[in-house]
Amino acid sequence: MTPTTTAARGEHGSSGPAQNGASPDAAALEPVMRRALELAQRTPAGANPRVGAVVLSDDGAVLGEGWHRGAGTPHAEPAALEDARSRGHDVRGGTIVITLEPCSHTGRTPPCTEAILEAGLRRVVFAAPDATAEARGGADRLAEAGLTVQAGLLREDSEALNERWAQRMAEGRPFVTAKVATSLDFCVADAEGRSQWITSEQARAHAQGLRRRVDAILVGTGTLAADNPRLTARTPRGEDAERQPLRVVVGLGEVPADAAVRGTDGRFVHVRSREPEAVLRELARLGAGHVMIEGGPRLVGAFLEAGLVDELWHYQAPLLLPGGLPAASGLAPRALGDAARFRVEGTELLGPDLLIRRMAVSGEAVTTGAAGNELGRAALYGAEKNH
Amino acid sequence: MTPTTTAARGEHGSSGPAQNGASPDAAALEPVMRRALELAQRTPAGANPRVGAVVLSDDGAVLGEGWHRGAGTPHAEPAALEDARSRGHDVRGGTIVITLEPCSHTGRTPPCTEAILEAGLRRVVFAAPDATAEARGGADRLAEAGLTVQAGLLREDSEALNERWAQRMAEGRPFVTAKVATSLDFCVADAEGRSQWITSEQARAHAQGLRRRVDAILVGTGTLAADNPRLTARTPRGEDAERQPLRVVVGLGEVPADAAVRGTDGRFVHVRSREPEAVLRELARLGAGHVMIEGGPRLVGAFLEAGLVDELWHYQAPLLLPGGLPAASGLAPRALGDAARFRVEGTELLGPDLLIRRMAVSGEAVTTGAAGNELGRAALYGAEKNH
Repeated sequence: MTPTTTAARGEHGSSGPAQNGASPDAAALEPVMRRALELAQRTPAGANPRVGAVVLSDDGAVLGEGWHRGAGTPHAEPAALEDARSRGHDVRGGTIVITLEPCSHTGRTPPCTEAILEAGLRRVVFAAPDATAEARGGADRLAEAGLTVQAGLLREDSEALNERWAQRMAEGRPFVTAKVATSLDFCVADAEGRSQWITSEQARAHAQGLRRRVDAILVGTGTLAADNPRLTARTPRGEDAERQPLRVVVGLGEVPADAAVRGTDGRFVHVRSREPEAVLRELARLGAGHVMIEGGPRLVGAFLEAGLVDELWHYQAPLLLPGGLPAASGLAPRALGDAARFRVEGTELLGPDLLIRRMAVSGEAVTTGAAGNELGRAALYGAEKNH
Repeated sequence: MTPTTTAARGEHGSSGPAQNGASPDAAALEPVMRRALELAQRTPAGANPRVGAVVLSDDGAVLGEGWHRGAGTPHAEPAALEDARSRGHDVRGGTIVITLEPCSHTGRTPPCTEAILEAGLRRVVFAAPDATAEARGGADRLAEAGLTVQAGLLREDSEALNERWAQRMAEGRPFVTAKVATSLDFCVADAEGRSQWITSEQARAHAQGLRRRVDAILVGTGTLAADNPRLTARTPRGEDAERQPLRVVVGLGEVPADAAVRGTDGRFVHVRSREPEAVLRELARLGAGHVMIEGGPRLVGAFLEAGLVDELWHYQAPLLLPGGLPAASGLAPRALGDAARFRVEGTELLGPDLLIRRMAVSGEAVTTGAAGNELGRAALYGAEKNH
């Protein structure tokens, strides 16, 4: 039931029956779109775009609301339609207001365009176009089916919500999560090279949950030699999970014939490159949309240096490892004003340890608070600096 | 109104009119003491002991509950008495069940012994004796005044709540908070030595609140030379707070005659020592009960190495500073099993930054999860280690 996709790009106001988002009608829907944007913020930040949707009756009453709850769950549109139905509303002839163009492809869930057509809606208003190669064309599909389609209402607000996602989609590369388990002084091993275990059983079990969600797990050849990891995703009971990520060894070193990572299921790949961009191109070619780097420090450092870590899952044990091995190596020194910055998405206590989930902040380094001014005029030594 | 203190130590069951905690009567109060211990856990961990109290009528009905809410607020006993009064209860002839021996000294609050006597209570049951030089003798004071005093009920549970506090009290040293403001890779300055500002305005304002709560602020002579800090406590409006901590420069280097830290209020001290123990002895002599180390890395490292950091307030900015200056230096390398460990007490988002508050875990290094076993049998290289 995959619809034909077309190569439509950007705004839809200029082609076919679609109308421009600046029409008075669309502008009247601005408060509704703001509500959809609010709903979108409930989507956990991560590999998927944050999307919200509101279903209206033909006279403008709100019938249902929905948002994307994360990978493998229904998209915002079917969620909003289901919400309306569960309240006993008839949505036929109504309007759906969405923060992102409805997808027209079958991923883990069916295409949203078909859900909208089946529901008998008459009009679709969305904020930002979906530039994803596989998902785009949704607006064209709906317009061709005779619906009124309006694009671009509060587009920038929606794009701001999904900046990093849009960027990697435009680049055609997978979403990159780096997972590190460190001491509070950011070390992944003690002065003797010992890393098992810095974090608690609870933290390690939690990290297994991550393995079950990604398409590929990456380690460098150094970690391979040191730890001989299996890299399989395991269930809370310790059994191999049904869905296994691709096991990827990155680097120019050899992978021994008896390395545990090879396994027997054909889901092992050795990418002979040290270039993060090249590695991601290869993994995109192999169909991976979300990859996770598990170490070691050189591989993590290379991806951080390249600005290719979208998300950092930091399991932090409350202990000190002076003289230990830093979690990321090979990074070029940068001045404070040019530092790679993240945004804290959330924290969680896992036994004695703290999980800090951070998302990369796109674009140029962002200075916090009054830092911009302070950095501009700070004399490094001597003068009183009000502290 | 300070009562005469006596040199009573340890259990009170063997002297004067006080009875033994193991009496059937006291044992019947065990559920009440458990409730008091629960209340005690509401006291924020920090420089003060965690204490809870329950007031009972002479026929055993609960009249009021209280706990110590932190420095400068009423102790658990007056809080529980006030709770009973606010509910309209007559507490005369009743019993108070407390997790710690009532204090008999005037600190920021009046002595609890006097509050108990004024309230007309007939019996006092407490778990752990207060070994503090200035506060002890409370049980004797109450017994001499004719009350029935029972000590030792669930003493170990109470002591476990206040292990670190009891230890430092026995040593007669101040409580030590170390405050660090770091990048996510635990650096306090970038590769060029720049530290202003790693954390946000919100985080820095929050840290000022700490300055207003402690008795002394410590910096090393290196930080003095680099930053020429004033070290004053300031109000949220940026004015000097009414109550100013002692400003302490630690180290053998000189303090310039025009150093800002000298101020004009006579609250400046230069402690010419590099030994944390000696520094704390001197500050105890000057009456400081709670000191805060603000840096730099050598001073923080020396206190950490000596095991003399009770509490670590870690303001962590979500950025990377490769090649930067670590927040603690001079620490001897330790194996994972011997690492200095903390317990995460809480986290708070302050603008973009994360405050992680940690308390030192007393005694020998504690291994987390299955670490003990794993460390025992881990071969460092080669063998498969199930990850």
